[in-house]
This record gives sequence, structure tokens and C-alpha cells, in this order.
Amino acid sequence: MGHQGTDDVVRRLKSVEGHVRGVQRMVEEGVYCIDVVNQIVAIQRALKKVSSLVLDDHLHSCVTDAMRGPDAAARERVLGELMDVFEATAKV
Amino acid sequence: MGHQGTDDVVRRLKSVEGHVRGVQRMVEEGVYCIDVVNQIVAIQRALKKVSSLVLDDHLHSCVTDAMRGPDAAARERVLGELMDVFEATAKV
Amino acid sequence: MGHQGTDDVVRRLKSVEGHVRGVQRMVEEGVYCIDVVNQIVAIQRALKKVSSLVLDDHLHSCVTDAMRGPDAAARERVLGELMDVFEATAKV
Amino acid sequence: MGHQGTDDVVRRLKSVEGHVRGVQRMVEEGVYCIDVVNQIVAIQRALKKVSSLVLDDHLHSCVTDAMRGPDAAARERVLGELMDVFEATAKV
Repeated sequence: MGHQGTDDVVRRLKSVEGHVRGVQRMVEEGVYCIDVVNQIVAIQRALKKVSSLVLDDHLHSCVTDAMRGPDAAARERVLGELMDVFEATAKV
Repeated sequence: MGHQGTDDVVRRLKSVEGHVRGVQRMVEEGVYCIDVVNQIVAIQRALKKVSSLVLDDHLHSCVTDAMRGPDAAARERVLGELMDVFEATAKV
Repeated sequence: MGHQGTDDVVRRLKSVEGHVRGVQRMVEEGVYCIDVVNQIVAIQRALKKVSSLVLDDHLHSCVTDAMRGPDAAARERVLGELMDVFEATAKV
Repeated sequence: MGHQGTDDVVRRLKSVEGHVRGVQRMVEEGVYCIDVVNQIVAIQRALKKVSSLVLDDHLHSCVTDAMRGPDAAARERVLGELMDVFEATAKV
């Protein structure tokens, strides 16, 4: 991952961390449950954006290198990993 | 998509079609709502499996060809399409 | 489920059924994989809308009756079912 | 939310917070992208569990009180909120 990409991802993760801490306070202060759930949904949305950035970088670096390289096993490996990510993240 | 892959996907889609028809009957017969929702979840799971098969085939054909080919724009296109699928299907 | 609600849900499921048949044809005709995946995503979105309608009706009928009734076990049952739906459908 | 429920939720959120910090380090140290994505998926799963606990508590407190109470508008409000949660969290 390039420096700029890494910085952006770390910055977003720090923001997620602060958001999680904020939800802890909400729970301790007895804020209305639905508001807590909505904040958790917002955090999950932010995490999806991070996954998206990491995956995009991965496609343009490791996947591109492996796919254009001579090693058939390496190509199969990166494609298999992409399928695993799809299986783990896609809905239902 | 190879013949065998196509046949499997079409067979699964025919099964989904029958399942959807079954849920129509359930609704018309006034079956308990939760049972209807559970059947819809089962259909969505079957559809995810179909997407998964189609995507796996896609990675091993079009994506592999484009990534190993000389056309940088074609490579960028297939990677962009993969990101779009991730955005559209990944949770939250 | 009231007559109007049932009719709307059945109508939507018939539309989903036709959509699934359309995707079968697309696969048989060798349409580009990504277009197939996008159609499946559209079908899943339509199915989510159906679940949503069924669930909304359920909350206003069975759940309301059970929750306002004298039977504590029945109340516990409908709440447990709602949690099961959440577990089965919520992302990740 | 009862004391015990609150403590459990806060404890889980603290664990999520630590997990997010761990992923920041992984990104800074240049860990393989797919491993980062898998950790984010694990965090999202932990957050779903938290939502689930909060929602379960909500059903047994606010929703039960409102549904058994005399105020039709309050009943409509809690049911509407449950539908909003379903819309925001259910797949696709």
C-alpha cells in the first residue's frame, strides 16, 4: 500500500476508534437503544469504506502483479482470496 | 462461461424460480409471516451462491485474460467492475 | 396479512419470478458475467423489499396482538422470532 | 438497559476499540491486505453482536412497555423504529 493510501486508511481507522469510544459513552449514559444501534450501523459503514480502500489498493498491487506474473499457483491464490473476501462480505 | 458452469447456474436459477413460486403460494395461503421471511432469506442465500459461481468463473476467464493482456485500460476496467460488485454486495 | 398487503406481496414475487427467468436466459445467451451479477443484486434488493413488507405487516398484526395479550410466553416467542430475523438478515 | 447488559455491551465495545487499534498497526506495518480485510470483517461481526444485544434489550424494555401501553402513537413509533433498523441493517 502506498504511503498516501496507508495514511488515509489509518486516519479513517482512528476516526472509527473514536466513534466506538463515543458509543461506549452513549451506552454508559443510557442513551436510547435505537440511537446506539444507528451509531453502530454508521461505524460499520465506515469500516466497509476502509475495506473498500484496502481492497482497491490490493487489486492494483498484489493482484495485478500476481496475475501478470508467470506463476500459475500465485494467480490461483490471489483469485481464491478474492472469492473468500466475496463469500465473507457479501450479503446473506 | 463453460458449458458445465452455465448448466449448473441455470439449474440453480430454475430452483430459485420454483422456490419463489412456492413462497407466492405460502403468502396466498396465509402462512405465518416469519416462515415467509425465512423462506425469502433461504432464496437470497441461494442467489448469493449463484453470484459466487458466476463471479468465480468471471475471475478465471475475463479477468484473467484482461489482466494478462497488454491493454492497460481493459485491466483498469475489470478491476473497477470488481470494486463495483464489492460495493454493491458487501454488507452495510 | 390483509387482502391488499397479500396482493402487493404476491405481485412483487411474480415480478421476482420473471426477473429470475430473465437471468436464466442471460446466462444461457452468454451475457457478460458482471451484468448477470448486477441483475442478481437487483433481485435480492426486490426480495428485501418483500421481506420488509411482510415484516411490517407482521409487526402490526401478530406482534401487536401477542404483545398486548396476557400470555407472557407468546410475547417472548414473538420477540425471539424478531431477534432471529435480525440475526439471519443483518449484515456480517 | 440493565446494569449487567450495559457492562457486557461496554466491555464488548472496548474489545472492538482495541481490535480497531490493532488493525491500524497492521496497516502501518504493511501487513498483507487480505489479512487486514479479514480483521475488518471480524470487527464488523463483533459489532453486529453488540447491535444484537442492544436490540434484544430494547425489545424487552422500551418496545414491550410501549406495546402494552395505552398510547397508540407510541406503539406506532417503536414499530416504525424497528422497521428502520431492519431497512438499515438487512442485506442488499
